[in-house]
Amino acid sequence: MAGALEIDSVPPNVNGKVEILTDDLIPTAVVAEPLPKVITAAGGAPSESEDDDEGLEKPAKKSREIVLGRNVHTTCLAVTEPEANDEFTGDKDAYMAGVLARYRKTLLERTKHHLGYPYNLDFDYGALGQLQHFSINNLGDPFIESNYGVHSRQFEVGVLDWFARLWEIEKNEYWGYITNCGTEGNLHGILVGREVFPDGILYASRESHYSVFKAARMYRMDCEKVDTLISGEIDCSDLRVKLLANKDKPAILNVNIGTTVKGAVDDLDLVIQTLEECGFSHDRFYIHCDGALFGLMMPFVKRAPKVSFKKPIGSVSVSGHKFVGCPMPCGVQLTRMAHINVLSSNVEYLASRDATIMGSRNGHAPIFLWYTLNRKGYKGFQKEVQKCLRNAHYLKDRLRAAGISAMLNELSSTVVFERPRDEEFVRRWQLACEGNIAHVVVMPNVTIEKLDVFLNELVEKRSTWYQGDIQPPCIAADVGKDNCVCALHK
Amino acid sequence: MAGALEIDSVPPNVNGKVEILTDDLIPTAVVAEPLPKVITAAGGAPSESEDDDEGLEKPAKKSREIVLGRNVHTTCLAVTEPEANDEFTGDKDAYMAGVLARYRKTLLERTKHHLGYPYNLDFDYGALGQLQHFSINNLGDPFIESNYGVHSRQFEVGVLDWFARLWEIEKNEYWGYITNCGTEGNLHGILVGREVFPDGILYASRESHYSVFKAARMYRMDCEKVDTLISGEIDCSDLRVKLLANKDKPAILNVNIGTTVKGAVDDLDLVIQTLEECGFSHDRFYIHCDGALFGLMMPFVKRAPKVSFKKPIGSVSVSGHKFVGCPMPCGVQLTRMAHINVLSSNVEYLASRDATIMGSRNGHAPIFLWYTLNRKGYKGFQKEVQKCLRNAHYLKDRLRAAGISAMLNELSSTVVFERPRDEEFVRRWQLACEGNIAHVVVMPNVTIEKLDVFLNELVEKRSTWYQGDIQPPCIAADVGKDNCVCALHK
Repeated sequence: MAGALEIDSVPPNVNGKVEILTDDLIPTAVVAEPLPKVITAAGGAPSESEDDDEGLEKPAKKSREIVLGRNVHTTCLAVTEPEANDEFTGDKDAYMAGVLARYRKTLLERTKHHLGYPYNLDFDYGALGQLQHFSINNLGDPFIESNYGVHSRQFEVGVLDWFARLWEIEKNEYWGYITNCGTEGNLHGILVGREVFPDGILYASRESHYSVFKAARMYRMDCEKVDTLISGEIDCSDLRVKLLANKDKPAILNVNIGTTVKGAVDDLDLVIQTLEECGFSHDRFYIHCDGALFGLMMPFVKRAPKVSFKKPIGSVSVSGHKFVGCPMPCGVQLTRMAHINVLSSNVEYLASRDATIMGSRNGHAPIFLWYTLNRKGYKGFQKEVQKCLRNAHYLKDRLRAAGISAMLNELSSTVVFERPRDEEFVRRWQLACEGNIAHVVVMPNVTIEKLDVFLNELVEKRSTWYQGDIQPPCIAADVGKDNCVCALHK
Repeated sequence: MAGALEIDSVPPNVNGKVEILTDDLIPTAVVAEPLPKVITAAGGAPSESEDDDEGLEKPAKKSREIVLGRNVHTTCLAVTEPEANDEFTGDKDAYMAGVLARYRKTLLERTKHHLGYPYNLDFDYGALGQLQHFSINNLGDPFIESNYGVHSRQFEVGVLDWFARLWEIEKNEYWGYITNCGTEGNLHGILVGREVFPDGILYASRESHYSVFKAARMYRMDCEKVDTLISGEIDCSDLRVKLLANKDKPAILNVNIGTTVKGAVDDLDLVIQTLEECGFSHDRFYIHCDGALFGLMMPFVKRAPKVSFKKPIGSVSVSGHKFVGCPMPCGVQLTRMAHINVLSSNVEYLASRDATIMGSRNGHAPIFLWYTLNRKGYKGFQKEVQKCLRNAHYLKDRLRAAGISAMLNELSSTVVFERPRDEEFVRRWQLACEGNIAHVVVMPNVTIEKLDVFLNELVEKRSTWYQGDIQPPCIAADVGKDNCVCALHK
């Protein structure tokens, strides 16, 4: 049996005949067997399914069913085998251009109506379009060039140095890299913690990002979930109880610089104090700060717990596609040089010691970050943080004025409020929901005008949802009685 | 102490005065403390270091020292704080445009002189440039939409379906996703194997990619390194010995569909036969196929061991930036739906069950892949595979004709040969090296013309390297006596 796929013979004349390639040039002959079955739509034209997103202006659909492995198969854009005469007719090019143009329209609409995720959708990297022709790969360690020359390490290290200044660590004392996302930062930080303390126990508040618990499972670490306050911050009295119960083992802590749902900032200083009071000396704990979104906002907010390597922390991660804004997910991970050797292994293939998780790494992301950091500077970010906090307060105040339960943590731009009753409304505004609550994350691209459109729509919809006996939900359990204005608490 | 960074006060008048922002609009006031220290070059202009790569035409440099955390600091492009009047003068924009233009020139040169890594650098995604304005993120499971609307799942699933046809698994029987790179595919495949067999032992040949051994360490798995044949293939007689010594534990196997250095393809059928002969029934082993490069070439090569889910394998991964070509690293990971539930956890935040490793995922990569697969089709890839194999044979034949030790595995386009003596030459052509050997991976963008330039240069250089007593190295230990033409073996 010679290598080729034999799922089915190619249907004759369906999508251009698949010629048998003859080859008398090389000993390792290319297969002459039929190629995999080609895909065509019923009408003979390539199938393009309706994008789910385009249905938003239509009447509400049936409630979404989540069936693993099915939902998107029905709406996917199948890859089709080219016709023999495609280049002559241009049909395929025209078809693909049509798909892309419609997709772009969808993206524009979806970008416009987005409030729920902490992504700054306002960026213009037009000047970097020229680089899309290159396969830029920073494989391996950012500080050591590999033999592969098409990289962007010079940009990457510039960006890392900028964050090192922000988080107060000297150039020769840190190690770090640009990750693929906040999750990779958490995976890396927790892995470094585990390598430093192989028998350490991971402590994380139950409102930590799910990647933290994923890491514990991946790395086979014991993990203690710590309770949270109503704000979403870690409850240090519960942390104390759990630390004291495990005094014999080192502690690896995930500290949230902005939780996913409530934007709550764990009190780093109190966490360190609790560790010390429980008898953990600095050589018996490792703290990873998950600064996904707020890691880049906190330095510019008064009264915020300060994230700094002058404190006994081991690593900090932040997302690049969140506050900065980037076409694709990315992030920054910084740790102490002293910790990283435990993770490195010599890999001659790359002429590089590789302490990253991914090995091959997107070389475009550092250039996007470098570009924006250069243009905005610390001062530009300061202004944007100011705007976001101001707009978040505006949103919270207007929600409350309209009789809607809502909470905004002091240091946060994440406004938590009652989950809208209509799933279609949730999807239209792309709100992230959990139980009875939803949130809006006010990012630099979220203007007062956009918030007004949202608020007016929400108030109007609510008047249709809540009539007669149907009451808005009580969310006191999530946001506290003071922030709840349900029938019982108002 | 109020949130702000206080590394140093800003040097006066160095880089525009940092104004204190006043804020009487919001209760959570923005900091009024000094911002982090700004960076300027000695002359007052932003510092731009020479790109290391531009030095290639200069005389050979001193041999490279690998010092963790140092090498690139000296050549990095620092991020500088904008001047107060930047918008007016346009100086910063001009500076950045200059940096990018020079960088682009470097990339062009480096792309032209690239032979060592298995990346197809020949692609044109100009039609997709319009999408760079969007923050496309396929967070969570590809088959279940999250509430975040700016995604490309419809493209992603189309691509996955294409690979499912290639590897012979029905749509409703597979699960998969587009990864950030081949390493993520290996990390995922091996993790699935471990979740299926928590006490399983990982077996991988010692020529497997280093990410396989990284995974074993991350996941705290027992790992047996299996010997290889001179070709680089796994030695199934050694595998047998090691399997028999661990008969009481399930087996998790990494099978290489193209090793990193020699492009050797493990004999999947013989591996399965060995497992069976050692008494491992199909419910006591899990095979992950690392098809980084050749996973997409093998289906089109005669006599190649066939990768197919009709055989008892658990997962297959392949890189997207290698044979297909893509601006940034990416990959495809496919596994059986039956296996994936062990990895899933419900995460209401995303309205998505997340069995991926990364969570947030680059939504551009699937569109790049979709675009190329559509344009080339199975037939287009078949032609390119043919061309690569033909050109690889040309290279090997010419090397041998010039008296240079060289090896080319039958199913491979990776030509292994004696490591060039001059590190500068290695860097100029971006060859991947290990010990006494180097390799060229003949990809679709590597033409006969490019190979001729390389060969002529190599032959000329060798005449200066090997004079008098200095002899080319013996590489019989790496490629076998038959392929070695050193003084002893020729």
